[in-house]
Amino acid sequence: SSNIRLAVIPGDGIGTEVVAEGLKVLHATGVKVETTEYDLGAKRYHATGEVLPDEVLDELRGYDAILLGAVGDPSVPPGILERDLLLKLRFELDHYVNLRPVKLFPGVATPLGQARPEDIDMIVVREGTEGPYAGAGGVMRKGTPHEIATQESLNTAYGVERVVRYAFEKARQRPRKKLTLVHKTNVLTYAGDLWARTVERLKPEYPEVETDYCHVDAASMFFVTQPERFDVIVTDNLFGDILTDIGAAIAGGIGLAASGNINPSRTAPSMFEPVHGSAPDIAGQGKADPTATILSVAMLLDHLGLSEAAAAIEQAVADDLVERQGAWAARSTSQIGDDIAARVAG
Amino acid sequence: SSNIRLAVIPGDGIGTEVVAEGLKVLHATGVKVETTEYDLGAKRYHATGEVLPDEVLDELRGYDAILLGAVGDPSVPPGILERDLLLKLRFELDHYVNLRPVKLFPGVATPLGQARPEDIDMIVVREGTEGPYAGAGGVMRKGTPHEIATQESLNTAYGVERVVRYAFEKARQRPRKKLTLVHKTNVLTYAGDLWARTVERLKPEYPEVETDYCHVDAASMFFVTQPERFDVIVTDNLFGDILTDIGAAIAGGIGLAASGNINPSRTAPSMFEPVHGSAPDIAGQGKADPTATILSVAMLLDHLGLSEAAAAIEQAVADDLVERQGAWAARSTSQIGDDIAARVAG
Ligand SMILES: CC(C)[C@H](C(=O)O)[C@@H](O)C(=O)O
Ligand SMILES: CC(C)[C@H](C(=O)O)[C@@H](O)C(=O)O
Repeated sequence: SSNIRLAVIPGDGIGTEVVAEGLKVLHATGVKVETTEYDLGAKRYHATGEVLPDEVLDELRGYDAILLGAVGDPSVPPGILERDLLLKLRFELDHYVNLRPVKLFPGVATPLGQARPEDIDMIVVREGTEGPYAGAGGVMRKGTPHEIATQESLNTAYGVERVVRYAFEKARQRPRKKLTLVHKTNVLTYAGDLWARTVERLKPEYPEVETDYCHVDAASMFFVTQPERFDVIVTDNLFGDILTDIGAAIAGGIGLAASGNINPSRTAPSMFEPVHGSAPDIAGQGKADPTATILSVAMLLDHLGLSEAAAAIEQAVADDLVERQGAWAARSTSQIGDDIAARVAG
Repeated sequence: SSNIRLAVIPGDGIGTEVVAEGLKVLHATGVKVETTEYDLGAKRYHATGEVLPDEVLDELRGYDAILLGAVGDPSVPPGILERDLLLKLRFELDHYVNLRPVKLFPGVATPLGQARPEDIDMIVVREGTEGPYAGAGGVMRKGTPHEIATQESLNTAYGVERVVRYAFEKARQRPRKKLTLVHKTNVLTYAGDLWARTVERLKPEYPEVETDYCHVDAASMFFVTQPERFDVIVTDNLFGDILTDIGAAIAGGIGLAASGNINPSRTAPSMFEPVHGSAPDIAGQGKADPTATILSVAMLLDHLGLSEAAAAIEQAVADDLVERQGAWAARSTSQIGDDIAARVAG
């Protein structure tokens, strides 16, 4: 089969370090891949003032997938790279599913004293292109005592249906076949009602899937007290942002949390990235855990239909995580990458 | 001194059970109090179709404070009692501070394996009258493939300044004197900017207070991994809703989480209530833990300047919680109330 054409955006801070390990492990699978690096992020912003030029965006559309490390640096005004690069890619490439597994691997320490791996095994299907992330809103009388600032959540039947449908499909494929909608229908009545009606409307098409509803405040609590409640969660962009960080926390930390920004209609490439940020405080020291990126590479391969290579990486990570338990010496970023790559190759 | 005039809304489900214990403990303090009960909630709604008649609202304005149990029942369409009673009271009585301590009492089991009481001791100052709770939004082409539903967060300089000021005052009075703003400024730029600028603008008036900022997703994670980061948190209505439920989870559960809906300008009575809901599944069985309501009564007394009585209740609860540790037999709702009341009286 032909080579995978992969665009790579290492980004800033630890982004470059973890992406190097992700690619190392990718190459170890033997999958034929051709990578092209893009220097988007703080450096390009400082050098040229550009964040995501149109030509670059158009080029990116031509790849099979995108691997992103992390962007952001204290030298760049907050929000610029997040909005004009990260979110712009998600919106422009129509990544309407932000797929975030929350899974406690055996051997991994969780802050939850009582939780076992079988208790924490869910997938959060976060909407990726609308809701409170739409950027709608405004400000009036700024800086005066009469200032008013608004922020609008935009939810469309089109946008909600496609992500809910995706979540039903995911739920159907899992042993427990349970789908939980998380929202705040008792307060955010207009948006919540659209989400709730959409789940109800599609439910008859998936008779084998059990559905459930949970307010976001209660769901956030249950992540900590009863994570075993959840199998597949579908939720809006902002609630998904919050829940998946709690999910990362309970499943052993942000160093292990992978994500896929997926365009299931395949009208544009999907993008895979660790949930963590660029962590400028530990950048360049070989301290970052590349596991989240390596697991994101597995999601990428799975998305491209290379499920064997994906499974090999997941197994290698699982084995590495069991082994870490007893280890007294912390390994560097590249040592972890070497070890996982060796398992994949070997 | 004259009697405290207290309006009591027991509400539905376990609401009535826990309020009975709250009042029992209140009476045990010896504070002179005159209570008037209001039957607001599911029963009144079914009997009369009314949720909060204007005359009742006007009457409530005349009290020194309000004690609320919990409202809500599966027989009432979701959202009605929440919006037209709970939120309406908060809005009409201008409860712009929703004060929610997150404190791990010694002896209390937390799902966080490693956390000690000194690690979890914070106060969340949640805005209570605006933001995404304003009820603004709409729907168009409902039920069609072209439906769009919007939900608007309304933030005013007036509303943000007064709650941020309150939080600075709280922080100043605590040993650590640390105030963390939680928002999502990198995505919700208009609202986030107003909040961030307000903190910066008021900061010089509180030179002894150290300030900090945290995105809501990271903050939610830190509640689980590093709760010791936080002292006083100030945040918007929706983020506060989510954070305080995570807070309840890490501090021993929703059975212990108290809250005050406070009108610091005292143009109307403040209202105190447990964070938990009416829990219809366990209602009427004497299974509910009344501790959250009892701690809410302590907050109520403190708000009315009766800090000795408030402290006596808090101490009694703290002692009771230590004792619970070794207890093999679960006590009923009224037994817990009896035991705490005895300590207060004793
Ligand atoms: C950086 C930020 C814009 C982003 C988000 O809010 O989606 C991040 O928190 C994430 O979860 O990927
Ligand atoms: C019942 C609901 C409207 C309420 C809220 O969202 O504020 C509750 O969750 C709370 O936290 O007091």
